[in-house]
Amino acid sequence: MGRKNFHEIACSIARSASIVGDSWTLLILRDAALGLRRFEELQRDLGIATNVLSQRLQRLVDQGVLRRHRYEQRPDRYEYHLTDKGQELIPVLFALMAWGDKWESGAEGPPLVLHHRTCGHRVEAKVTCDGCGGELTPESVVYQPGPGGRTGEGTALIATVLNSAGDHTTP
Amino acid sequence: MGRKNFHEIACSIARSASIVGDSWTLLILRDAALGLRRFEELQRDLGIATNVLSQRLQRLVDQGVLRRHRYEQRPDRYEYHLTDKGQELIPVLFALMAWGDKWESGAEGPPLVLHHRTCGHRVEAKVTCDGCGGELTPESVVYQPGPGGRTGEGTALIATVLNSAGDHTTP
Repeated sequence: MGRKNFHEIACSIARSASIVGDSWTLLILRDAALGLRRFEELQRDLGIATNVLSQRLQRLVDQGVLRRHRYEQRPDRYEYHLTDKGQELIPVLFALMAWGDKWESGAEGPPLVLHHRTCGHRVEAKVTCDGCGGELTPESVVYQPGPGGRTGEGTALIATVLNSAGDHTTP
Repeated sequence: MGRKNFHEIACSIARSASIVGDSWTLLILRDAALGLRRFEELQRDLGIATNVLSQRLQRLVDQGVLRRHRYEQRPDRYEYHLTDKGQELIPVLFALMAWGDKWESGAEGPPLVLHHRTCGHRVEAKVTCDGCGGELTPESVVYQPGPGGRTGEGTALIATVLNSAGDHTTP
């Protein structure tokens, strides 16, 4: 199943994964957020083959996550900027980074630390509920069918395990 | 560069991506969180080739994200349960799902909705600061070198764009 097909699954994780479910893509987005935006910078930072980098950038442009900005003519040279859609992916990377910091950084400690301008503190990203602000955990959440859900490839059995509507009214 | 090498990059996003930067893996974790844990269930739900499923499950077990639990003997049959490390990845999936809900679900609306048991409301996952509870955005964060950071493949130029130490003291 190729990337195109993941996008056809009625699942927002599958659709997101069809765009960013790739290690190089995640590192390109990391670099864009850090301010490394030129093809040559990305290539040097990542040590990625130029054809692979071109392909990943083109896909991110096609998907509206990055936009190309020409910063030099003859020869044309481009920077890749995060669009609004791309900017909104960066907090997801913060959450993934926090998980990696905790489980994969070992005795050395985290490679990079974030500070929050707003409060001045070092940040550990948390995934929280927009209603109450509480941290979301697998046990604290009830899964229910949404309007765009359907049974099909990639979601063939999910309907059988979803909670029936109304369950959430008794927290 | 294979998965093993991504893990060698001094970056928690690269290390996390070496474990979960793969579309099938993300869907296997989604299913485990929803309660689909048996090989046969995963295979039927996802429509994934059995050899691909076996390989992905083995890697998740090797990385400590899932653990195998034998639920039947002769022949042996296994379920795959999220470990604590795996459970802590699920909120990252909630954040990725929220992004997909917003940008990729189209007119149909979200395929799946979450309700928070704690407050009883429908959830839109946010990535927030553990210090002040405010939402994290790319602009609200300052990136600084961490103790485990180093310049090398995958992080060859990052040090040149990180904020110098102390910048966070003037929010």
